[in-house]
Amino acid sequence: MPALAVLQAAGTVGAVEENLRRLDGFAARAAAQGAEILVTPELFATGYAPAVAAESDGAAIRDALACIARRYGIALVGSSVEATPDARHITASLFDHQGAELTRYRKSHLFGAEEQAVFAPGNERPEVLRLLGMSVALGICYDVEFPEFVRSAAGRGTDLLLIPTAVPATGDVGNRPPAHTYNAERISTLLVPARALENGVYIAYANHTAPGFTGLSCIVSPYGTFLGLAGDGEELLFAGVDPAEVRRAREINTYLLCRRPELFA
Amino acid sequence: MPALAVLQAAGTVGAVEENLRRLDGFAARAAAQGAEILVTPELFATGYAPAVAAESDGAAIRDALACIARRYGIALVGSSVEATPDARHITASLFDHQGAELTRYRKSHLFGAEEQAVFAPGNERPEVLRLLGMSVALGICYDVEFPEFVRSAAGRGTDLLLIPTAVPATGDVGNRPPAHTYNAERISTLLVPARALENGVYIAYANHTAPGFTGLSCIVSPYGTFLGLAGDGEELLFAGVDPAEVRRAREINTYLLCRRPELFA
Repeated sequence: MPALAVLQAAGTVGAVEENLRRLDGFAARAAAQGAEILVTPELFATGYAPAVAAESDGAAIRDALACIARRYGIALVGSSVEATPDARHITASLFDHQGAELTRYRKSHLFGAEEQAVFAPGNERPEVLRLLGMSVALGICYDVEFPEFVRSAAGRGTDLLLIPTAVPATGDVGNRPPAHTYNAERISTLLVPARALENGVYIAYANHTAPGFTGLSCIVSPYGTFLGLAGDGEELLFAGVDPAEVRRAREINTYLLCRRPELFA
Repeated sequence: MPALAVLQAAGTVGAVEENLRRLDGFAARAAAQGAEILVTPELFATGYAPAVAAESDGAAIRDALACIARRYGIALVGSSVEATPDARHITASLFDHQGAELTRYRKSHLFGAEEQAVFAPGNERPEVLRLLGMSVALGICYDVEFPEFVRSAAGRGTDLLLIPTAVPATGDVGNRPPAHTYNAERISTLLVPARALENGVYIAYANHTAPGFTGLSCIVSPYGTFLGLAGDGEELLFAGVDPAEVRRAREINTYLLCRRPELFA
């Protein structure tokens, strides 16, 4: 039963070396407490500021992330920028405990005008791969808010989704009665647990801290319950994840078998 | 801005006349309090017992529902059995305030062995139609737990989903630690508000009462908030629903525009 950790912390914009030094310390703590996988927030090493992050040296950051994984013998999900001749992408990488980059995924749902101005969306689904006896896949932030994204991963056999995120704290949008405003905290409190329940998957969701971001990082069970839910400050969450629970949850809720794609695709 | 009511009450199995008499009383109360639409639980007139309901005279029940709608000048969503030469279906009907049956929908996701033994699933998507200035569609119970179902309705222009339901109170399944059990109350507390938020639609969800059922009927806004949430007893919920809120919610959360069906269908 793999032991999973989720980091909630603020990546400081423009302070790559400091962020990586702090990430090294978090990985040391997570490993010392027995974690075998650590998920970190979206663009933690650069800080989440799309235009600034876009200029960063993603390859160098991935090298540093690989070193951290190897140093502490922990699988690590980190997020960086990938530059091709044609475009820049927000990516997440999964490194194994020896620092090998097992997979890299390009965010396919870019969030908002700022991201869309400097990044191109990925055009491939995340790979599903084996890690510590589980089938895992990556996603990034806005991706998980789309039921189709998680359904696709679950349909391809995913037990555990590893999701770096950066959710700006929007407050109540619109200055209207509470029931008629939107608050981005609902991504953590409603959407992420609903995704886990409706697909029978674990979700690890690693966010930046308040005040700029919503916090509320979480580890959610395939029953839709919180195995860990952060507040708004710096925090490491821990939970055991077990593929037997995925099977059990899907025997109770047979959503993947009962869906009717010929009518509702 | 249409005024909507949702009835939470127990339909007694085998007591069609008594159930219809009670439904008449609820419609009178809802109309007296200003409601223009009343949504009632799945198979309320027969009680929710699939094998018993399957033998009921659905046409007679629909006639009675039409009379109630006309008597109180209120649009009414009621649920009954439809028998064709080949099969029986669980259906929901929308009657206008004059008692005309505007649309009838056959449940397309049957829940559990008991329903599947006596009913056939519908093979058509619910119609989207205009009622009191809003675009409405019907769904029944298990349907709404599938994100594809609500996405399809929202993609075809639905502002408001009207959902009779019957959610058996399962308790915590499996006699295991709370985080590793399923409780059907999560359909109301997680899945229904998530559906509303991720599509920017209102959802009216009318259930039977405890102890046999979970209660927790609700009216949810396109922001994913509860405009009304029942406890476990008999209750009428009321809320105003406004197509302008649907537009506003979809400007804040542009999920319908940002989805990527070419990658994640």
